[in-house]
Amino acid sequence: MTPTNLLLEAFNCTTYPLGGHGKRNIHVLKQVLGQLDDSLESDNYGTGPVIEDFQQKIANILGKESAVFFPSGTMAQQIALRIWCDQKGVKKVAYHPLSHLEIHEEDGLKELHGIEPILLADKSRVIHLEDVLNMPEDVACLLLELPQREIGGQLPEYDELVAISTYCREKGIKLQLDGARLFEVLPYYQKTAAEICELFDSVYVSFYKGIGGIAGAILAGDEAFTKESKVWKRRHGGDLISLYPYILSADYYFDQRMNHFAKYYEEAKELAGLYNQCHGVTTRPVVPVSNMFHVHYPLPKAQLEPILVSIYEETGIGLTHYLREVDETSCYYEVSIGDRYAGVPKAQLKQAFDLLNAKMKEAQLAGK
Amino acid sequence: MTPTNLLLEAFNCTTYPLGGHGKRNIHVLKQVLGQLDDSLESDNYGTGPVIEDFQQKIANILGKESAVFFPSGTMAQQIALRIWCDQKGVKKVAYHPLSHLEIHEEDGLKELHGIEPILLADKSRVIHLEDVLNMPEDVACLLLELPQREIGGQLPEYDELVAISTYCREKGIKLQLDGARLFEVLPYYQKTAAEICELFDSVYVSFYKGIGGIAGAILAGDEAFTKESKVWKRRHGGDLISLYPYILSADYYFDQRMNHFAKYYEEAKELAGLYNQCHGVTTRPVVPVSNMFHVHYPLPKAQLEPILVSIYEETGIGLTHYLREVDETSCYYEVSIGDRYAGVPKAQLKQAFDLLNAKMKEAQLAGK
Repeated sequence: MTPTNLLLEAFNCTTYPLGGHGKRNIHVLKQVLGQLDDSLESDNYGTGPVIEDFQQKIANILGKESAVFFPSGTMAQQIALRIWCDQKGVKKVAYHPLSHLEIHEEDGLKELHGIEPILLADKSRVIHLEDVLNMPEDVACLLLELPQREIGGQLPEYDELVAISTYCREKGIKLQLDGARLFEVLPYYQKTAAEICELFDSVYVSFYKGIGGIAGAILAGDEAFTKESKVWKRRHGGDLISLYPYILSADYYFDQRMNHFAKYYEEAKELAGLYNQCHGVTTRPVVPVSNMFHVHYPLPKAQLEPILVSIYEETGIGLTHYLREVDETSCYYEVSIGDRYAGVPKAQLKQAFDLLNAKMKEAQLAGK
Repeated sequence: MTPTNLLLEAFNCTTYPLGGHGKRNIHVLKQVLGQLDDSLESDNYGTGPVIEDFQQKIANILGKESAVFFPSGTMAQQIALRIWCDQKGVKKVAYHPLSHLEIHEEDGLKELHGIEPILLADKSRVIHLEDVLNMPEDVACLLLELPQREIGGQLPEYDELVAISTYCREKGIKLQLDGARLFEVLPYYQKTAAEICELFDSVYVSFYKGIGGIAGAILAGDEAFTKESKVWKRRHGGDLISLYPYILSADYYFDQRMNHFAKYYEEAKELAGLYNQCHGVTTRPVVPVSNMFHVHYPLPKAQLEPILVSIYEETGIGLTHYLREVDETSCYYEVSIGDRYAGVPKAQLKQAFDLLNAKMKEAQLAGK
């Protein structure tokens, strides 16, 4: 048995895991279907009220003409970039070096679409206006991810977004929003989804991150764009006879949680504060701008694991189920606040962080 | 309101629709989930017992080393062909001119994978050994669809399959089975799934046709092949965080219906017989070799529709919800036998076909 499994097992035994909405078991889907009449008819290859009504609802919320439901964001975003490339006749796009497209999709964009990405900024920070001003002008599309997940969920300021959007429109470069966690950043920006999406030509949003659905994504834009995206959806094998398990759960949990993101954001700031008070521990960003952040430790993974396990066992609080190595002397994990956090007793939370602080101090002293 | 809607509406009001298992509403999924404990955990990006156990179960049934669950057959088959093309270094495959890949996928194989298809046989018949012997030898893969759906579900004889398989193996041409309706043809062949699949290097089967699940497909082959298919599944955007709504329903309805296909096949022959006794009406094939067949009428669509509507209203029997034009003087529809047929009272069935016969006679006399 590997040490990672010990951490996971200890985490699974805690009474109060701090992140997320709850376990990803089939109750999540049963809960949705239980509210609905048995006779509700399936969607049928992209048609029918179940899919069409939800697409229109989200299009309205994003302030776009039209929207298409996809099984995944991977599929939706490759297709968005392909459409903009075809329109301009240039197979080149720009995005962040830690974009989902670059590190989690087995090079689908290159292998399936023959599109070459230009990587903007470096791995330590978000894309800024200056990066955009300096990029080759012959790219068909610039993709921005808000927030930039792999660096803890960081954001450019709204004014900078406006400047980037203005520049791209002047230069005829399309702007695609990777809004996997768009609803999560609205409380920071103090903007509506439509106000953010207005800056972009096309938008992808996800329904199983902050929303907590089963899977699935929406791609939105103007009518011509979404119409073409349906052709590509079929080519990709994503135009399923029935997508309703994803659509119905997306709709249900969207309604349930769309007004909770400000609370998650406040809670993320509170929890990050608790982490940052612990010896040697830092969050990234230091002050979260959404419901998420990363927690960095100046300890080797193998050394941190037993510390966390002992805290879980003593307090019933679960901080993380995994650790990712940065290098031999440090590691980190991601935290995303959901429904669970509000139910955690403050006294136990304080106890866990007092313990973490003490143990980190001890570990660092011992290491000197 | 179009005449097509009148037919559909009349069909939806019938007590005894003859085809299929039942309505495609959310009861189909609720029924499955209702049998399962709420705490059953989701699959997670292709891992976890829910997906791994089902993959192994179907691999065993197909007699293949390994299997991968896909959201769709469109995705699974493009990927199978791509893998075989890459392995041979030739971007050329062969299949029937009415293959799903050729007519229902918006040219995904060409647009995403740059693969050129060689079309074998003509639209009126299945691929025979002679077609295979005469095809260019530099194709990477030959795809055979059993049964050939778009011509009513026709089959080559088993001995001919063996001869095709032997030839392809000699020539180093991979053989892919489009087995969307594989389980449906086993009673005709009097073979197990594994005995048929043994002739092929890779196999796709579907879970929402005869099986009656929600959606989803399995692609099976040897370990190296399925491992590579997972990489392409991710590239296509099909490696979802959760595929369990499809997997659990595939598993449930597979267990429920896998032993019913012989019955469906017998019923299809019976029903085709009733059609063929009607004036001017012919089925294709005349004697079905699976649970499916097409019904052809020597009447224009607009003339047949009111005839069908009147039969539905008088007898409560629903023959079809749509008509497809062949040309200005003839039309057809597809019939697939499922659970419903066994529950239809024989007397009402006879009444409907007596009526159909009489009305067809009348219509054809009037037309002369």
